[in-house]
Amino acid sequence: MIHHYSPVHYHVALGSYAPTLYLNDGDTVSTTTVDANGYDAARQIITAEPNPMTGPFFVEDAMPGDTLVVQFDSIVPNRTWGWSRAALSANVVAPEYVRTLPPRELVNWFVDTEKWLARLETPPRGLENFALPLAPMLGCFGVAPSDGQAISTVTSAEHGGNMDWNGFTQGVTAYLPVFARGALFFLGDGHAAQGDGEIGGTGVEISMNVQFTVRVRKNQKINTVRGENAEYIFTVGNARPLDGALQIATTEMHQWLMHEYGLDARGASILMAQCIRYEVGNIFDPAYTMVCKMPKRFLPGK
Amino acid sequence: MIHHYSPVHYHVALGSYAPTLYLNDGDTVSTTTVDANGYDAARQIITAEPNPMTGPFFVEDAMPGDTLVVQFDSIVPNRTWGWSRAALSANVVAPEYVRTLPPRELVNWFVDTEKWLARLETPPRGLENFALPLAPMLGCFGVAPSDGQAISTVTSAEHGGNMDWNGFTQGVTAYLPVFARGALFFLGDGHAAQGDGEIGGTGVEISMNVQFTVRVRKNQKINTVRGENAEYIFTVGNARPLDGALQIATTEMHQWLMHEYGLDARGASILMAQCIRYEVGNIFDPAYTMVCKMPKRFLPGK
Amino acid sequence: MIHHYSPVHYHVALGSYAPTLYLNDGDTVSTTTVDANGYDAARQIITAEPNPMTGPFFVEDAMPGDTLVVQFDSIVPNRTWGWSRAALSANVVAPEYVRTLPPRELVNWFVDTEKWLARLETPPRGLENFALPLAPMLGCFGVAPSDGQAISTVTSAEHGGNMDWNGFTQGVTAYLPVFARGALFFLGDGHAAQGDGEIGGTGVEISMNVQFTVRVRKNQKINTVRGENAEYIFTVGNARPLDGALQIATTEMHQWLMHEYGLDARGASILMAQCIRYEVGNIFDPAYTMVCKMPKRFLPGK
Amino acid sequence: MIHHYSPVHYHVALGSYAPTLYLNDGDTVSTTTVDANGYDAARQIITAEPNPMTGPFFVEDAMPGDTLVVQFDSIVPNRTWGWSRAALSANVVAPEYVRTLPPRELVNWFVDTEKWLARLETPPRGLENFALPLAPMLGCFGVAPSDGQAISTVTSAEHGGNMDWNGFTQGVTAYLPVFARGALFFLGDGHAAQGDGEIGGTGVEISMNVQFTVRVRKNQKINTVRGENAEYIFTVGNARPLDGALQIATTEMHQWLMHEYGLDARGASILMAQCIRYEVGNIFDPAYTMVCKMPKRFLPGK
Repeated sequence: MIHHYSPVHYHVALGSYAPTLYLNDGDTVSTTTVDANGYDAARQIITAEPNPMTGPFFVEDAMPGDTLVVQFDSIVPNRTWGWSRAALSANVVAPEYVRTLPPRELVNWFVDTEKWLARLETPPRGLENFALPLAPMLGCFGVAPSDGQAISTVTSAEHGGNMDWNGFTQGVTAYLPVFARGALFFLGDGHAAQGDGEIGGTGVEISMNVQFTVRVRKNQKINTVRGENAEYIFTVGNARPLDGALQIATTEMHQWLMHEYGLDARGASILMAQCIRYEVGNIFDPAYTMVCKMPKRFLPGK
Repeated sequence: MIHHYSPVHYHVALGSYAPTLYLNDGDTVSTTTVDANGYDAARQIITAEPNPMTGPFFVEDAMPGDTLVVQFDSIVPNRTWGWSRAALSANVVAPEYVRTLPPRELVNWFVDTEKWLARLETPPRGLENFALPLAPMLGCFGVAPSDGQAISTVTSAEHGGNMDWNGFTQGVTAYLPVFARGALFFLGDGHAAQGDGEIGGTGVEISMNVQFTVRVRKNQKINTVRGENAEYIFTVGNARPLDGALQIATTEMHQWLMHEYGLDARGASILMAQCIRYEVGNIFDPAYTMVCKMPKRFLPGK
Repeated sequence: MIHHYSPVHYHVALGSYAPTLYLNDGDTVSTTTVDANGYDAARQIITAEPNPMTGPFFVEDAMPGDTLVVQFDSIVPNRTWGWSRAALSANVVAPEYVRTLPPRELVNWFVDTEKWLARLETPPRGLENFALPLAPMLGCFGVAPSDGQAISTVTSAEHGGNMDWNGFTQGVTAYLPVFARGALFFLGDGHAAQGDGEIGGTGVEISMNVQFTVRVRKNQKINTVRGENAEYIFTVGNARPLDGALQIATTEMHQWLMHEYGLDARGASILMAQCIRYEVGNIFDPAYTMVCKMPKRFLPGK
Repeated sequence: MIHHYSPVHYHVALGSYAPTLYLNDGDTVSTTTVDANGYDAARQIITAEPNPMTGPFFVEDAMPGDTLVVQFDSIVPNRTWGWSRAALSANVVAPEYVRTLPPRELVNWFVDTEKWLARLETPPRGLENFALPLAPMLGCFGVAPSDGQAISTVTSAEHGGNMDWNGFTQGVTAYLPVFARGALFFLGDGHAAQGDGEIGGTGVEISMNVQFTVRVRKNQKINTVRGENAEYIFTVGNARPLDGALQIATTEMHQWLMHEYGLDARGASILMAQCIRYEVGNIFDPAYTMVCKMPKRFLPGK
């Protein structure tokens, strides 16, 4: 079943709030998200920052200890105006170098979903011909966290949240640990494109049309966000410092290979050591994000 | 001019040692490296670990403040025996998870340079059909460091050293800051293949035939290792934690874009924020390694 | 006015929950806390872990942007049974060393509030005569966080929470930033004593009788927890890694010296560089805690 | 035997350089050190920065695997001019806050060894009456490192080096692992006083008269710097990030308690968890320094 849902309010934390829509296993939702500052498709500010979330969506039968499967069917900008920041974030450069960074002012982009390119409205010297291919993604999505917590959309943890990884594009399937009845899925913070690390503190921020499909895997307990795309299965660590995020992601991949692919601790170690690829989600938010990827072609049985 | 050089001794630190060969700008060297434990092409141990280095090569005219350009023309395993470790390193998994790791015993590989694949000699359950494509690389190379220092081949810093990045394959050009007269270039620690992060503490360790060509860029001062391949220019940060390595690499890229590509601090920030890609070198050695890559197609003037 | 309050329920997160008691500026509360696992003065488990909180207390007139002043008048164990863990935490030792750590089993203590000493019930070899002076403290206290968040009592941030600093003893005054109307103060997780860093993951865990007095400083905005004792003013950073916690605490002290003690950025730097003392709160919880202390005798005007 | 040694040259790295003086077990040396920039007692610059070292001193019978014991008998400034920096270091404050830091200009102090106080030559507003008690210390000392390395005096590791801990005052005994024949002891970088963390990047920098006594403990292998003063035994971790330094120091203390005080892994854990005190050495140099202290009164047998 496809639900067409127009949000009427938004949340700036992921928590056990009243559901906006009830979904069954296999249901699809077509909805919209506003940008990180609360601007919608009509460039109107309609809700408060930071990273206002559409949702939460209650998924029937999802219980703590289950896994929520979210397939992102499509993620497409629904306006032509994007914005970003004009300075690298202080925490991505050498400490003394911070003194030389420019101001963090806003920069506007023209986002062309026909040509699938973004261009700077007022390009600085040298970037006059710069055209950025679109690669629309969701910076922030997740479920209600454990213990009745409500956690701000500026950060992330094992429940998801503000991971800002440019790999969360359409066609990707995310796996989320369920901590609350109904899972309570939230989404938002779209970027038309973004470099690794979200090192300017933003991607090309934009509102989106999003379609996604939910499923529940009963009694399949995972410890942090997982996912897959055409080429890779992957795990996501959200923590500081970056090493800590990498440790979480690597540990989760080791467990995944043992529990679902029949390897023992030694075999999973041997395989991972020679085949793993890492990607940097964000190194800007209170928790950083590191993704640990295993090529599907090396998985046992493939 | 091509020099054919057979090493007679090796070094376990990069320092201002007596040169083994004198090179001119543009010279090419064809030589060999032993593996990380000192085993040569004949599987004989001929020198002491860790990571024995071939060299140093003295490059005429290279003076402190210059840049040494090293083009890796070919890096090819010169034997069929490779080895790795059977456990993830303790520092890449969640601290409490370390208790569950298997022993760090040796694992042998058959390295087939005909089929360009490596196979485990005694595959664990589930990896019976696992064949790893070769991607030969050098784990450790660099120049004599500043201030008359001699720094162990187990670690790395702005002079290079044990970076263990799987992107240092043949076809890559590395740029090294010169700290001592003649630069004094060292190389070794070949891997037939390696996952990101060298998370088992080794790649598929092997001895190599290596050919490289040196050039000097006078009065071009850089602050850490740089390089380029067909698609990217890149900078390399060597430090702990991983965030610190990323900061060094990101700062160096920002400076590169300003000094050689005509961008100002603001323009370089805007471009980097949406286009940078990161890769993890090693997260095993005393200094970790992070690589910051900029696609050449987005560079001003391209 | 003194309120005698017996808790009837507890919280495992700090959030904007229904107040248990309404206080006026200057009011004193005499109450009790259970231990980290929910055991009370009678050694009965009466509520769920982790770190169940007494409260929240609503303080009239406290509004976002104000500072809540909490003076800890007395913190005294109300039973003789304490417990701790028998192993160092995995994250306080070198990663490879984790393999050698003993199991994290429970250890019982006899807490003697007459002699003001704690003794191990079953001392291991060499600790037969070991008597630990009591220094009762609260491991976890704080206010409702910003943006309607509810944050687990296992961690800490600018609102306080699980800081586990052994300097939070009776006689100390804490300053907390107010994020929600009424501030909503929580407290619990008493330790009869604790080394720096809470490196075993626990102090000598115990239930407490606590008396505290609240005041409100209107329109005095602070960014993280501050405090003072007889000798020092201090600031508290809660983050990972430990460097990040230190950065928060150091920044807050620099601002405090400028805004309340008349120093400029240069003067505050000069004074701090030669006079600051640091203490490690915990290096066990999801956020670590570092305390930056300035001796009162060096403050301008003293 | 007492040797009176006047240095004729200095080193900016700790390495296996030619000895300046040969000592026997139990010998005492009375010598001088220049300040971090190479200025001597007469305020003349006589050698190049950074942190020029007096030495190395060759200690007869000291062999790799032994421990060198260095007792600091006296450390006293030999001039009245001290200097420091006027800004906090960029790496001790929150990254975005770096933009607000003042310039790192030099500040002069009058160091009064009669009154045992230091005063600013030109005090900023609010510090007119500020008098800093002297607590003279050595910022940098150590032995030749392993594997023939030579490591710059700007950093530190298991061989010692630039630790910048204000606890290294007269009366302290340091234990250093021996890596080279004769140990090759170096010292310098005196501070008349210094806050924790050396957060301005300097203490009150000054030249010193130093007297020390050396001993050798044969076949006693330690892994990093240890020491003791009247109240504590302590271990020193030198690494980044600060957590890593803490892990090294904590691991070394755990081993010390097991190997010399008869505790097992469990007993040493229990004792440490409730009794350890940490101090921050420097958080400015390439490697940070953390000290793990155990009160002697809690040691078995005391």
